[in-house]
Amino acid sequence: MSHAVTQTAARAGGGLLLAGILLSACSTSSDAADAAPEDGRLLIDGGTVVVMDDAGTVLEGGAVLVDGGAIAALLDAEAARPADVPVLDATGQLVIPGLVNTHGHAAMSLLRGLADDLPLMTWLNEHIFPAEAELVDPDFVYWGTLLSSIEMLKSGTTTFADMYYFRDEAARATIDAGIRAVIGPHVIGFPAPDFASPAETLSDAAEFMERYRDHPTLIPGMAAHSLYTTPLDDVRAAAQLAIEYDAPFQVHTAEDASESATATELTGMGVVEALASIGALRPGTVLAHSIYLTDEDIERIAAGGAGVSHNPQSNLKLGIPRAAPVVELLAAGIAVGLGTDGAASNNDLDLFDEMDTAAKLHKFTNADPTALPAEAVFRMATMGGARVLNLHDRIGSLEPGKRADIVLLDTRRAGLTPLYNVYSHLVYAARGSDVSTALVNGRIVVRDGRVLMVDEQEVMERAHTFRDRVREVVARVAAEAR
Amino acid sequence: MSHAVTQTAARAGGGLLLAGILLSACSTSSDAADAAPEDGRLLIDGGTVVVMDDAGTVLEGGAVLVDGGAIAALLDAEAARPADVPVLDATGQLVIPGLVNTHGHAAMSLLRGLADDLPLMTWLNEHIFPAEAELVDPDFVYWGTLLSSIEMLKSGTTTFADMYYFRDEAARATIDAGIRAVIGPHVIGFPAPDFASPAETLSDAAEFMERYRDHPTLIPGMAAHSLYTTPLDDVRAAAQLAIEYDAPFQVHTAEDASESATATELTGMGVVEALASIGALRPGTVLAHSIYLTDEDIERIAAGGAGVSHNPQSNLKLGIPRAAPVVELLAAGIAVGLGTDGAASNNDLDLFDEMDTAAKLHKFTNADPTALPAEAVFRMATMGGARVLNLHDRIGSLEPGKRADIVLLDTRRAGLTPLYNVYSHLVYAARGSDVSTALVNGRIVVRDGRVLMVDEQEVMERAHTFRDRVREVVARVAAEAR
Repeated sequence: MSHAVTQTAARAGGGLLLAGILLSACSTSSDAADAAPEDGRLLIDGGTVVVMDDAGTVLEGGAVLVDGGAIAALLDAEAARPADVPVLDATGQLVIPGLVNTHGHAAMSLLRGLADDLPLMTWLNEHIFPAEAELVDPDFVYWGTLLSSIEMLKSGTTTFADMYYFRDEAARATIDAGIRAVIGPHVIGFPAPDFASPAETLSDAAEFMERYRDHPTLIPGMAAHSLYTTPLDDVRAAAQLAIEYDAPFQVHTAEDASESATATELTGMGVVEALASIGALRPGTVLAHSIYLTDEDIERIAAGGAGVSHNPQSNLKLGIPRAAPVVELLAAGIAVGLGTDGAASNNDLDLFDEMDTAAKLHKFTNADPTALPAEAVFRMATMGGARVLNLHDRIGSLEPGKRADIVLLDTRRAGLTPLYNVYSHLVYAARGSDVSTALVNGRIVVRDGRVLMVDEQEVMERAHTFRDRVREVVARVAAEAR
Repeated sequence: MSHAVTQTAARAGGGLLLAGILLSACSTSSDAADAAPEDGRLLIDGGTVVVMDDAGTVLEGGAVLVDGGAIAALLDAEAARPADVPVLDATGQLVIPGLVNTHGHAAMSLLRGLADDLPLMTWLNEHIFPAEAELVDPDFVYWGTLLSSIEMLKSGTTTFADMYYFRDEAARATIDAGIRAVIGPHVIGFPAPDFASPAETLSDAAEFMERYRDHPTLIPGMAAHSLYTTPLDDVRAAAQLAIEYDAPFQVHTAEDASESATATELTGMGVVEALASIGALRPGTVLAHSIYLTDEDIERIAAGGAGVSHNPQSNLKLGIPRAAPVVELLAAGIAVGLGTDGAASNNDLDLFDEMDTAAKLHKFTNADPTALPAEAVFRMATMGGARVLNLHDRIGSLEPGKRADIVLLDTRRAGLTPLYNVYSHLVYAARGSDVSTALVNGRIVVRDGRVLMVDEQEVMERAHTFRDRVREVVARVAAEAR
């Protein structure tokens, strides 16, 4: 959606306005304002506040005071409420930190379910790559990223880290949707849809990092696809720029059993060892997947301070027969967050699903029902993810001083009744569709389960036109192969 | 939905229809009057009909004609529509067979999340058993089963098999909710909340089987808890009664590594061997879990015609380090369905979650992304489950002549856009909350995501009073243990 279109939609939209009036007539939450301005004050009152501080504070009937886009104070049930502050009624709801999705390829939601249950190389070579080669352009990335931003916001994710192409359009989509995102230059060792080489990708990368360095929600970050696709010198150059800008740096790491051998062939070192050799294992480096790690690798990661993005659903679906050693990584003090990976290999972007799967998978692989208890998993989806992205001074918990990225989850349905333990519900029973409200940087961007900043219907219609083109391309490629 | 209302809605313009939807969303009370009578005619038109016949027919823009509680006809997009039949508009929706949950303990939803992430024996002895011993009475079972029936209907399950206590109250709850269920006498070799012994349980079991044998939605079935809790003679007696009434027979089978040794000690035979020896491996026998099976066991099950209920989420959560050999069971021609197990060990009753987990788990354990493709998994949740319960002449697909157990799933949201393949969406991306409408035996029991037959709010309030009592009991038991 171009800015012009966005403004038109915001001004016009008789249907939306009608819907707003009807909804407010029967709304269960008091509407302080439509989308509250970022600098406004708001008291989110009456819910169960799950703070995610180190002490694991939970305030039943508590309140969160939002001021100027930040969390100004937490109030317990007995504390006096400030006067003259608009109130968002959170009765029956859990008030939680917005979830953090530490790895994905947002625009690939346009290829969601295009081809499943196939060997990796068939999936890539006969479906994904042909579709991407012909179709991935600025428009594809803008609309695909917008589609994913809507899905994520509606399911409680307020920050995501993205690794794809056409960074400018991806950034614009997240800003239009009102979601916090880590986006930036992405080097890969073969011609990509946006740039023909890592050198071209890097040529004006600094300009991007510079432009967004003080943006309220767009966090510029560097990415290198992987050591098996990209020469180590280019990975190093990308990592160096991340260091220069104190920015996140994303890289696929040890997702597949063959990666270590390939890295050794190319660099004389294992994957993690090679990343260590270029100084890339620092805080803010996101090692996506990190399945095939040795004990030495875990020591290297812990020593360097890098974080791991755990993507259990994508890994399982691709038939990778090992699980990331999450219990061991946490025991080593390494920051671990959750990621959905792209919707083409998951096939959704709902971190509630990912929490449920993570909690159960590691009980199975460790033969231990006490492994990864619910609270630890919810911490991975919030503070853990914030630490992985090195943004834990800003997001990941509801502690005063942090940015107001806050989600309300409505527990008033049979499937979430009764409630004995908030973490148990959040991990094992809740779904993204239970999210009623989301704030990013103090602004309400989801209310009553609807996105407020963009027109979901219009975005879906655009997605349908891309689907038609994708089908044409895939059919032609299949015909040509015969 | 009364016919008059349906016809009005069908005639009304877009604006009025929108207003109607939004206004109906304000309603919090049940409107049983709107549920269509079981003998009415209804045309579900304009959706994508996923038939689940052997050919895997999918009708885009197709229609299902319901008449007298049964499926009377399937119409493709071009076929003429019958006149004077009320229309249920399925535009943008998938029209699927109601899902079949082949194993659970419905009333245990009142203990959902009471205690998680604990070793099995701690969980049972310090939490579940004390709570059950003091609290499980007819009232607990009625309200707990009602709570679960609501959760299941709203997430697309129209039939479930239950194994718990107080069969009369459980049956009444499912009839009140309008869900199809397999319920009946359940023998266990120690004093249970309802009967002191298997002999007592069986004393008037025939009366229960007799009473419901022609009921439109309540299918009387026998159950024996397991061979490790119940003497083989009592298991045999229960199985015999099932044979007499041509009814389903449920039994926990090979869930844990230790079961085989225990069975050998008690009976001189392995678990499956012992069940074979009493003639229990017949069609309609539901072998719940079936994880620790030998190749010989699989041959015995295939030869006898029994079915397997696969409960992946419960198994994973309990830290059982093996997966049921589902790929092998299917290859042997054995009927395999999905089950949620009780909400106390899952912690939800959403079969969409269970499908997603099943599809991914077996790719992982088989190191094969082509294992259990989405269509095979959706078949397990529908026709597979129907075969397991020996009800495949009545339910499990949308073929004419079957009972009209039909679910509409709304695909019109960002997270289900675009749509390339219906099975992929159903298994990997949809959630129970996408269900808009459910019919059981031709009667609309869920509409616009709300149950019509019972008052969900009232049931939740009852559940809260049980929660308070459960907390008291568990606190007292903990204090006494000190």
